[in-house]
Amino acid sequence: MHRTKVRVAVDALDANETIARANRDDFDRAGVAVVNMMSAPGAGKTTLLERAIQGAQRLRIGVLEGDVQGSLDADRIAHLHVPVTQLNTDPGFGGECHLDANMVRSALPEVPLSDIDLLVIENVGNLVCPAEFRVGEDARIMVASVAEGDDKPLKYPLMFRACELIIVNKVDLLPHLDVDLDRLVANVEAVNPTARILPCSAKTGEGVDAWREWLARLPERAAAPA
Amino acid sequence: MHRTKVRVAVDALDANETIARANRDDFDRAGVAVVNMMSAPGAGKTTLLERAIQGAQRLRIGVLEGDVQGSLDADRIAHLHVPVTQLNTDPGFGGECHLDANMVRSALPEVPLSDIDLLVIENVGNLVCPAEFRVGEDARIMVASVAEGDDKPLKYPLMFRACELIIVNKVDLLPHLDVDLDRLVANVEAVNPTARILPCSAKTGEGVDAWREWLARLPERAAAPA
Repeated sequence: MHRTKVRVAVDALDANETIARANRDDFDRAGVAVVNMMSAPGAGKTTLLERAIQGAQRLRIGVLEGDVQGSLDADRIAHLHVPVTQLNTDPGFGGECHLDANMVRSALPEVPLSDIDLLVIENVGNLVCPAEFRVGEDARIMVASVAEGDDKPLKYPLMFRACELIIVNKVDLLPHLDVDLDRLVANVEAVNPTARILPCSAKTGEGVDAWREWLARLPERAAAPA
Repeated sequence: MHRTKVRVAVDALDANETIARANRDDFDRAGVAVVNMMSAPGAGKTTLLERAIQGAQRLRIGVLEGDVQGSLDADRIAHLHVPVTQLNTDPGFGGECHLDANMVRSALPEVPLSDIDLLVIENVGNLVCPAEFRVGEDARIMVASVAEGDDKPLKYPLMFRACELIIVNKVDLLPHLDVDLDRLVANVEAVNPTARILPCSAKTGEGVDAWREWLARLPERAAAPA
């Protein structure tokens, strides 16, 4: 008796990875590069994003704001006249401490992909779980405030390991802190030897141009064959 | 035909609440008051705890250190010659971003309850999930660093609402920040009108005596009938 050969699906993905790939397909079709921006609460993600938007030349930036609740950061970004979409984890998702691919997917109908070159997804402020969920992004980056101390890479290594760019922010505060920038950099390198480390101060402007350039180059890098 | 009356269990608890009550019974039997100390990463929990231990008079303090991995904070506390137990969420618990009652219960055999009056549980640095899990404590408190900005109570209201004492730490940095202490206090009061708010600087010592006194009075408050 004839029978067809049973096809075996390989490389079975977990649900998050499956949805992240679907997001990625949508981003690729629209020609939009995507960055997943993470940090502890209050490290300065939104302010750095404001600086990047204010100095963007031809790059058309859109923002997806992840928060447990409220829209404080989205309201700030909206003042800069770029498309911004608020994604709250509280009402529909049980107050989750991170974004996952499915939450991002649920927001995509409200993101005008055809009008932007770069989508910045500002994750919920948290150094643990956001690093565990890909959302379909081209790059993962984080902001570490020097005010958090120089030991954080050793305490939250998964986050520091997951990111290709680590912005060490608020360096203007260093004279007032018992924090050793060299030790912080060494601790980052101990858990992630290949990350680019960018000292920055949204207040004084130190490092802000380099941050803008990194963002501006992402669409080209994302489009290049791996 | 005779049959016994079916007894209906009321007030069914979720598993975390059941285990938290079991922890609480153990703490009560040992006469130990317990505080669950929470914050974002790098807000200064461990340093404030060091200051409290250094100034403790007759109060015998023990510490349970919650971290995703590593024992940096426990090592610091151990230098002060108080009993300290490390609880890592990484190896056994999947890298969880918070402590729950079951994790605390798993650590209790290593906590010398009969030798202490007060157990301080230092939670994982995170402003979201730790607030969702009671662990059998008498009091929940948090440390908010002014360097995190004055908007955090509005973005993470559950955490600020869950705590009866909110230490506003690193106030020595205020002259160097675009942060309004009055606005921060108003935002705390907006989400938690009954919390005690204690401005503090582990660096200059401001507020540290009041913090020690609050801790010293907890065992008596915990023993008093509700």
